[in-house]
Amino acid sequence: MKSAEYKRLKNFVDEHLLDFLPDVDQSSQTVLDAMKYSLEAGGKRIRPVLLLEAFDMCAENLFFALPYACAIEYIHTYSLIHDDLPALDNDDLRRGKPTSHKMFGEATAIVAGDGLLNTAYELMNKDMLLYLDDPAKLKMRVKACYEIAKGAGCKGMIAGQIADLEAVNKQCSRELLDYIHVNKTGAMIVAAIRAGAHLGGANDKLLNSLTIYGENIGLAFQIVDDILDIYGKEEDIGKTAGSDERSSKCTYPKLYGLDASIEKLHSLNDAAVKALKPFGKKGQPLIELANELAIRIK
Amino acid sequence: MKSAEYKRLKNFVDEHLLDFLPDVDQSSQTVLDAMKYSLEAGGKRIRPVLLLEAFDMCAENLFFALPYACAIEYIHTYSLIHDDLPALDNDDLRRGKPTSHKMFGEATAIVAGDGLLNTAYELMNKDMLLYLDDPAKLKMRVKACYEIAKGAGCKGMIAGQIADLEAVNKQCSRELLDYIHVNKTGAMIVAAIRAGAHLGGANDKLLNSLTIYGENIGLAFQIVDDILDIYGKEEDIGKTAGSDERSSKCTYPKLYGLDASIEKLHSLNDAAVKALKPFGKKGQPLIELANELAIRIK
Repeated sequence: MKSAEYKRLKNFVDEHLLDFLPDVDQSSQTVLDAMKYSLEAGGKRIRPVLLLEAFDMCAENLFFALPYACAIEYIHTYSLIHDDLPALDNDDLRRGKPTSHKMFGEATAIVAGDGLLNTAYELMNKDMLLYLDDPAKLKMRVKACYEIAKGAGCKGMIAGQIADLEAVNKQCSRELLDYIHVNKTGAMIVAAIRAGAHLGGANDKLLNSLTIYGENIGLAFQIVDDILDIYGKEEDIGKTAGSDERSSKCTYPKLYGLDASIEKLHSLNDAAVKALKPFGKKGQPLIELANELAIRIK
Repeated sequence: MKSAEYKRLKNFVDEHLLDFLPDVDQSSQTVLDAMKYSLEAGGKRIRPVLLLEAFDMCAENLFFALPYACAIEYIHTYSLIHDDLPALDNDDLRRGKPTSHKMFGEATAIVAGDGLLNTAYELMNKDMLLYLDDPAKLKMRVKACYEIAKGAGCKGMIAGQIADLEAVNKQCSRELLDYIHVNKTGAMIVAAIRAGAHLGGANDKLLNSLTIYGENIGLAFQIVDDILDIYGKEEDIGKTAGSDERSSKCTYPKLYGLDASIEKLHSLNDAAVKALKPFGKKGQPLIELANELAIRIK
């Protein structure tokens, strides 16, 4: 994505993403190396950017939201490491680089994923400790962390992962495909936006509108990925093009066809934009982000 | 362990251990089945019992500490599921039953481990939401959750796991063995006790003494496991006897010999007991627990 605002926030995330990694001993250095490797492999940083953008709609000083933005990227990265494992998607390439288990072996990749997931919670909890005597700010943090935990959990991302695994080589209904996408990708997008909103102290009206925006953009984002996986170039998507198709995964273009997928994408996009219209200039960066997402597919 | 007090707390944990699992949809039922399977496989529940026992030294109504007790057992269980995987310890048997990947396949076992780890944080955070308007109780909970996150993390249990993996088939020094045990087992024992103490509102003096107790009992616990793995019967340890030896893992009996290992075990035990002596009758259940631990080795 190309807007100056997106770049500003993405750079902020990239610059500070490793700040919250633990300073480990020599004897456990390998796991930290593997965690760093996957965090540094790049990516769009869409979840932390959305979190910061939602925060930015209601508050200043992005540093207050930074631990949560990094935590959500750590969780996203752990999910990629584990998804790529031989027992799951068996992918050799991620963001144009060898996957974690190809670089460090399976055992370290599994533990590095666990390490990233745990570090995400550790750093959010450590941040909470700074606000033990400021009940109002502590509340915002507890709420933000809960949004992230819920989004990452067994009724969120993990539900989507397991349903996705089980759908391979099976007849996939439209309902099941929606279920997979809403949970596997959508839940963490919604969590990012709601966490940012809580951290910024958003009122209920804004929180609800941001949630509608997030639900729509989350599904749109996955449809874009599905389309690019089949029709895109390897450098655009950063993984082996066609890997979903090869693995007989259920995708939007496969179930709806390309035209209907693009149509669905645009209508999701319209709904996301409409939800933020009432907030005028404040909502503009997120509206722009949604539009840029749709433009990726021509 | 046999004391009535231990049984009381263990039964309390066993009775409520599944209460905090999410109520998932049909499409993601498999991951929940796998999570339940490993939680129900039994075990001594030593971490949650220690947490509840430390809580019990300063407060009443165990239900307040229950979410954290269950969370720590969820985290322990995830670590066993991932440790047993073919890429790590490659164990077929755990607590006398087929390991998770033997029952459900590797992919589901990996995701079930992730699910347990995430659910642990989700349930602690959900509990915090109940205390948003009670700053004193919210503080206790944030502190308890942080202890658990730190104990499970890259400077705790995960540090021990990765050092343990890397030590296989290598020359292992006494320092490295201590490092592995202190982190892999000790960190979560200490975390359990400190979390319970925070939840109960322990003062600094008690918190410090409980920490010393935990550090000593944590290492003692691992030495007992090492000894039983070599000399014990399969039904005592619930996994294939001799599996550490077969996998060329570094253990206390291997590095120190049996006699010196037992001597070290007893001196750790004495130090644990001594730390709690000043608290008289209040500390008795934990002292008894430490003594019972030592008695397992004759």
